[in-house]
Amino acid sequence: MAKSKNDPQFMLGIDLGGTKILAAVVDEQGRILGTAKRKTHAEHGADEVINRIANAAEKAVQKAHLDLSMIEAVGIGAPGVADHNTGVLEFAPNLPDWFNVPVGPRLQKMLGVPVFLENDVNVGTFGEAEAGAGRGYKSVVGVFPGTGIGGGIVLDGKLWRGARNAAAEIGHMTMMIDGPLCGCGRRGCIEALASRTAIERDIWGEIRGGRASIITDLVDPDDPTIRSGVLAEALAAGDAVVTTVMERAGYHLGVFTGSVVNAIDPGCVIYGGGLIEACGDFLMPLIREHAYRHLLRPVAPEHLPILVAELGDNAAVIGSALLARAAIQERVDG
Amino acid sequence: MAKSKNDPQFMLGIDLGGTKILAAVVDEQGRILGTAKRKTHAEHGADEVINRIANAAEKAVQKAHLDLSMIEAVGIGAPGVADHNTGVLEFAPNLPDWFNVPVGPRLQKMLGVPVFLENDVNVGTFGEAEAGAGRGYKSVVGVFPGTGIGGGIVLDGKLWRGARNAAAEIGHMTMMIDGPLCGCGRRGCIEALASRTAIERDIWGEIRGGRASIITDLVDPDDPTIRSGVLAEALAAGDAVVTTVMERAGYHLGVFTGSVVNAIDPGCVIYGGGLIEACGDFLMPLIREHAYRHLLRPVAPEHLPILVAELGDNAAVIGSALLARAAIQERVDG
Repeated sequence: MAKSKNDPQFMLGIDLGGTKILAAVVDEQGRILGTAKRKTHAEHGADEVINRIANAAEKAVQKAHLDLSMIEAVGIGAPGVADHNTGVLEFAPNLPDWFNVPVGPRLQKMLGVPVFLENDVNVGTFGEAEAGAGRGYKSVVGVFPGTGIGGGIVLDGKLWRGARNAAAEIGHMTMMIDGPLCGCGRRGCIEALASRTAIERDIWGEIRGGRASIITDLVDPDDPTIRSGVLAEALAAGDAVVTTVMERAGYHLGVFTGSVVNAIDPGCVIYGGGLIEACGDFLMPLIREHAYRHLLRPVAPEHLPILVAELGDNAAVIGSALLARAAIQERVDG
Repeated sequence: MAKSKNDPQFMLGIDLGGTKILAAVVDEQGRILGTAKRKTHAEHGADEVINRIANAAEKAVQKAHLDLSMIEAVGIGAPGVADHNTGVLEFAPNLPDWFNVPVGPRLQKMLGVPVFLENDVNVGTFGEAEAGAGRGYKSVVGVFPGTGIGGGIVLDGKLWRGARNAAAEIGHMTMMIDGPLCGCGRRGCIEALASRTAIERDIWGEIRGGRASIITDLVDPDDPTIRSGVLAEALAAGDAVVTTVMERAGYHLGVFTGSVVNAIDPGCVIYGGGLIEACGDFLMPLIREHAYRHLLRPVAPEHLPILVAELGDNAAVIGSALLARAAIQERVDG
C-alpha cells in the first residue's frame, strides 16, 4: 500500500558521544518512542563504533515496536567537525584517531535508510528550537556553557551552517579583547570568561591568592577539576569565592547574550549544557538581567525570552532525528 | 501587450539622507540609468520632504528616458528605524521630529508604484552584496565605520532583519567588556573602540596627555571634530599619535571581524563607509591580518575575502532598488 501524506513519520536519532551512543526512534513531533544505549569504545576504532551505532539503532527500533523499513531517515549528532553534505566526520576531539571517517555513507549502507550527519551542538540547538524550549520560535540562538561554550543558530526554522560549514562557534566570539587565554589559543573569547573551565581557573586563582573557599574541601587535590555539581554545592553553601566568580561569569554571559542579540535578533535565546543544568538557578537571573540591559533596542523580556533548554540528554537524538526529517523533506520539496 | 518575463526590469532607488535625497533608476543588474538629486530640507516637515522625494523620482525616470509606468517598484533607504512591513519610518536621528511617518504608503499613493522602505545601512549592504564587492557571494556581512559603526547582514541572498526587525546592529556588539563608553550608553561596543568618533576621542586624549600631533594644526580648535580626510592627511604625514590610534582601531576591527565570522561564517565581509573610504589603505591590511588570526577555523584568505565596498555613494540607491525588486518577486513567487 502506498504511503499517505498523513501517515505518521518515524525517524532515528543518534547521539554519538565520546563515551556512549544513544539511539532513539522519534516521531515528527519530536516524541521518543524507543531508545537504546551502547558504550562507544572509541579505542576499538571507527569500524567497531559504526557497528555499535547500527546495533543501537536496530535495538531502538525494536523497542519502539517498529521495523527498520518504517524509518524515514537517520540523523547523527557527532562531537566534532561534521560535513553534512558528505556525511564525513572530519575530526572529533573525543574520538581519538578519527579523521575523515565517512560515518554517514557507511551507516546508510548498513541500515538501508538515508543517514544525515551533523555536529552535536547544532543538532541539540535544532532539537530545542523545534521540540524543546524554542517551540514556536522561528529563529533561535542556543548557548551551551560546559567545559567549553558550544552554540547553535537556527534562522527561519533552518539550521544556519554558514558559508564554510563553520558558523555558530559563538564560544569563540571575543568579549574581552586581550583578555584571558582561551583553549583555542586566542584571548578573551566568551569561552575563556564563562565556561566551567574558565570558572575553575578563576576559583583556583582566588584560592592561590589567599582566599578561603569550601572548594579545597570538596575537590580532590590530585585533580583540580571543579565539576558543575560541585559549583552548585559551593553556591548553596554560600561560598564567597565561588559566588564572586560565578557572578562574574553570569555578568559576562549576560553581556554576551545582549551582544549576540544586537547582531542576530533571534526570537529567543536558549541556554543549556552542564553548567546551566547544575547552576541555572543562580546564573539565569544574572544572564537575563545583563542581557536586557545590553540590548541596543530594548524590548520587554517577553519579546525576547532567554530560556533554559528542556530536552536535557535527549536534545541530540531528537534534534538529529528532526533535522534528518527536514533534510528528507527538502529533497522532496526541492 | 502583456509583459514577457524576459523584458528588462526597471526599479527606482531612493537614498533619503539628512541633507540630500538621491533618486536613481536602476536595472535588474544594478546598473544606474538616470539619477536626480534634491536637498532634503527636513526642517520643512515630512509632507514637503515626501513631495521632494516624488519630484526627484520623476526627474530620475525622465533622465533615464523612461516613463513612471515602466517602473516595477520603488525602494527607499532611510536613515533610521524603518518598518519594512508597513513602510513606516519610526524614527530617524537626522530627520528632526520624524516619528512614525508612513513614507512608503504615502509615496506609493503619489507615484502609483509599489514602494518598499528599509534602513539605509541594510540597503547599502544589500546593494554591495548583489551588485558591488559581494557579487557572487550568497552571504555577506557589511561593516561601515564612520561617525558610528553601521552593519548589514545578507544570508542566502536575503537581507537578514531578525525576529524584531532589529538585527545587524553589529556596531553594538561588545568587544571590550567594561571598556570605553559608547554613544549608546553601554560600554566596550566596537563602535566605542573603532568608529571615527572613538578615534577622535583617543587622539585628543593622547594630545591632552602631552603628545605632540599634527592634528592640532589641521583641526579648528573651536570644533574638535577630526574628519576622516584629516586622519588620512595625518597618516600620510607620518603623525605618530594618529598612527598609534589608527593601528589600535585596525586591530580592534580585525579581531571584531574574526569574532563575527566565528558566529555567522559569511561568504565574505565588506568594509565601507567614510573612515574606510579615506583611510582604507592603512586600515584594511590591519583588519585582514587580525581577522584571519582570530578565526577559530583558519581559512585561506581567498576563502573568506575581506573586501572594500565598491558602490560608494550609490550603494543605497542600487541596494534599495534591488531590494524592492526582490520584494516584488517574493510576492509573485509566494
